[in-house]
Amino acid sequence: MEQGHSVEQLTQRLRTFADERDWQQFHTPKNLAMALAGEVGELLAEFQWLTPDESARVMADPEAGARVRAEIGDVMIYLTRLADVLGIGLVAAAQDKLTDSARRYPVATARGRAVKAPR
Amino acid sequence: MEQGHSVEQLTQRLRTFADERDWQQFHTPKNLAMALAGEVGELLAEFQWLTPDESARVMADPEAGARVRAEIGDVMIYLTRLADVLGIGLVAAAQDKLTDSARRYPVATARGRAVKAPR
Amino acid sequence: MEQGHSVEQLTQRLRTFADERDWQQFHTPKNLAMALAGEVGELLAEFQWLTPDESARVMADPEAGARVRAEIGDVMIYLTRLADVLGIGLVAAAQDKLTDSARRYPVATARGRAVKAPR
Amino acid sequence: MEQGHSVEQLTQRLRTFADERDWQQFHTPKNLAMALAGEVGELLAEFQWLTPDESARVMADPEAGARVRAEIGDVMIYLTRLADVLGIGLVAAAQDKLTDSARRYPVATARGRAVKAPR
Repeated sequence: MEQGHSVEQLTQRLRTFADERDWQQFHTPKNLAMALAGEVGELLAEFQWLTPDESARVMADPEAGARVRAEIGDVMIYLTRLADVLGIGLVAAAQDKLTDSARRYPVATARGRAVKAPR
Repeated sequence: MEQGHSVEQLTQRLRTFADERDWQQFHTPKNLAMALAGEVGELLAEFQWLTPDESARVMADPEAGARVRAEIGDVMIYLTRLADVLGIGLVAAAQDKLTDSARRYPVATARGRAVKAPR
Repeated sequence: MEQGHSVEQLTQRLRTFADERDWQQFHTPKNLAMALAGEVGELLAEFQWLTPDESARVMADPEAGARVRAEIGDVMIYLTRLADVLGIGLVAAAQDKLTDSARRYPVATARGRAVKAPR
Repeated sequence: MEQGHSVEQLTQRLRTFADERDWQQFHTPKNLAMALAGEVGELLAEFQWLTPDESARVMADPEAGARVRAEIGDVMIYLTRLADVLGIGLVAAAQDKLTDSARRYPVATARGRAVKAPR
């Protein structure tokens, strides 16, 4: 099966994967959002006892690095599938949100500050 | 700035966005994983009181649909940024994990069943 | 060691547990919040493919029930420890928040409706 | 209404709160687990850009401290309610899990090390 590196190819492969297993019945947005959150929880667990500096070097450890890459993959799988069943373009949604953030956090005032801006 | 629909274009725009604001200092994997989880929490909140069927119709409501799309965008932003600072190819990691899942869940035995397979 | 059923007894036992292992160094609020979220992710995974009705019967299955009880225990452990290192009274914080919710959701208007009220 | 500081008193008050508003229909374990995760996401957001040291001083800032206390309260509310609808004793579940952890992490070998033990 096609295993290309575009989101569209991943989306299509996930759709086929679910269809073949008759898993569409489980893939409601509610369930997929829970599965996404569960995978993010596993990703957090990889970082929870590391200092920020240690977390920045995590990929240098082959075992921890492989676990982190697998968790990132799991999160992307459920996020892509969720966006697909909702009919949302994943990258377009991110680009639009980033345009909004650029307006809320102008370079001049946001520089070097991690403060939340009003909406 | 480039706002294309590929993950690579999103990755590059996020890098520039962080650089311009001197936000790389905050963007450790540990911090980004937390931010990702925080956004997933906001996404869950959109679905928590809906039945699975109601969740499948959420995009039909313009206000709820816009909120869900914005939260999906936020989740994708932090996931893309996290993969970038870790040096992980986001779609490739998902494709590899899916190849692994295809092995763990053969069509013949997994059909119509939502049971977790052993690793 | 004392294993009583009050939050104060649990708090004290957790403090001793961390002290004996020299784990206070890892127990910053940031790290404990991540550990809490990781455990909540495992709890979500128990419910993600269940219908709401199936989730209501989960304790009738001895294996699933034991897993859910253990995850609830893990979540409570990190929540209690987090409140302790922050100097927050866990039950008092919940009671105060509930008083606030009673004001925001008067019985007359909130009855049977799962709509979020303004703050 | 009774606002005592025991988990039992909180559990009873939450039960009355839900009954009065006819909210039991929404309070399936699946939905409550999602609500719990959503509140934990808000708690994470308070700590995401802080260093571990800064997180340890968060209660010294009256505004941030009040937000953190309110989020801790929200998390405890949903955790207590979830345990109640499942018929699980919240503190007992934590005490039992801690007994299990004491076995998995003996003081002699676990001292000063944040490594996950096998089950």
